[in-house]
Amino acid sequence: MDGFFKQSVEDRLKQLGHVLPEAPVANGLYRTWVIRNGELMTSGQLSRIGTSVLKGPIKPEDPLGKAHRAAEVCVLRCLSVAQQALGTLDNVAGVLSLRGYVACSSEFTEHSRVLDAASRLVLDVFGGKGEHIRTAIGVSSLPSGGLVELEMTFAVS
Amino acid sequence: MDGFFKQSVEDRLKQLGHVLPEAPVANGLYRTWVIRNGELMTSGQLSRIGTSVLKGPIKPEDPLGKAHRAAEVCVLRCLSVAQQALGTLDNVAGVLSLRGYVACSSEFTEHSRVLDAASRLVLDVFGGKGEHIRTAIGVSSLPSGGLVELEMTFAVS
Amino acid sequence: MDGFFKQSVEDRLKQLGHVLPEAPVANGLYRTWVIRNGELMTSGQLSRIGTSVLKGPIKPEDPLGKAHRAAEVCVLRCLSVAQQALGTLDNVAGVLSLRGYVACSSEFTEHSRVLDAASRLVLDVFGGKGEHIRTAIGVSSLPSGGLVELEMTFAVS
Repeated sequence: MDGFFKQSVEDRLKQLGHVLPEAPVANGLYRTWVIRNGELMTSGQLSRIGTSVLKGPIKPEDPLGKAHRAAEVCVLRCLSVAQQALGTLDNVAGVLSLRGYVACSSEFTEHSRVLDAASRLVLDVFGGKGEHIRTAIGVSSLPSGGLVELEMTFAVS
Repeated sequence: MDGFFKQSVEDRLKQLGHVLPEAPVANGLYRTWVIRNGELMTSGQLSRIGTSVLKGPIKPEDPLGKAHRAAEVCVLRCLSVAQQALGTLDNVAGVLSLRGYVACSSEFTEHSRVLDAASRLVLDVFGGKGEHIRTAIGVSSLPSGGLVELEMTFAVS
Repeated sequence: MDGFFKQSVEDRLKQLGHVLPEAPVANGLYRTWVIRNGELMTSGQLSRIGTSVLKGPIKPEDPLGKAHRAAEVCVLRCLSVAQQALGTLDNVAGVLSLRGYVACSSEFTEHSRVLDAASRLVLDVFGGKGEHIRTAIGVSSLPSGGLVELEMTFAVS
């Protein structure tokens, strides 16, 4: 792993088995990112793979695998937004924050475990630069019936 | 429409048929705006017209008209907050972000269509300066039984 | 009360009968704070006292006392995070924003009254420096079954 962080972020993603999706298109009358005061903020990204949506809600008795995958998919979409904005993810100076919404029943309690899959991916790819604050929330529903929605904020170099 | 964007923001609102409400009063022990690092952020504004509240939740079978109106009402309240803070909306350098919460049943999926009414108003009034990021979330309930709640962030000149 | 605001923030908290908890540990793969552009932002803090969680959801017929306490507990945890980050709360130049999530049934409408307990504590301790914007949202569930979750943003001197 010694040379791992000497590679480009894009190469690290590949080596970890992740595929960046095409830059997400806004699902409405808005843009997908803004840069301001050295920070890149994304619009909320849903757990969507192409035209297919990983759907919620999740219940306490459901296995977490699908929700973990949904959280990762949201991260990859945010990273694709950042790549489009910055040219390359090597221009990310740091990951500042994740705000994650999980569509779930009122009895669900494992929101933090779901979002850990997102945080793990960020830390695996960015190392120490990936350390972030986080808010995890359970909601009754998300656009298009999505299971997870995620906002990310990056420091940009 | 050629001279449209040469008018004041207030005149454009009028010409589009919108009426700015009086500056909203905080519904509790907080203020309605803060300016920091060249950004004006509003407190969450509910779909409230005077003392009357446009109420949720919305269900999949409901027509979207009331929710569209609620989203617009939230925008107008945020604009009234910004006008109070800045003297005139001509001091808005740009609209940065909308974060919208829709009180809805767990089967509702049209959150993006609801928030499009907010984004459309912003773009109609501000043109290119109105391009923003956005997060749309469905929630079980909002203060006072409101249908929509909205936070807006502006760049200030 | 004349000398009240001449004391340290920590002494004021004590005098008001509040006890700062130990610095919260992240409930997952994230950090509890970040400082950027002169602002300290906390991760979402739950209504947790040690290993015990003040649990939701709250319903319209429930008394508000437990939820008030939960909101205060969240503030104290955010203050403990800030103290850890800044050494002492005297380095807080101002409180900028509170974003509060209340786990509640869809018929609940008193979110603003719940969050007022948080705002009251902030204003009691910080005086005019404590004036903040606020968003109050009702959600179907929170991590670990929590009743209230709170994010705070501070200006740092």
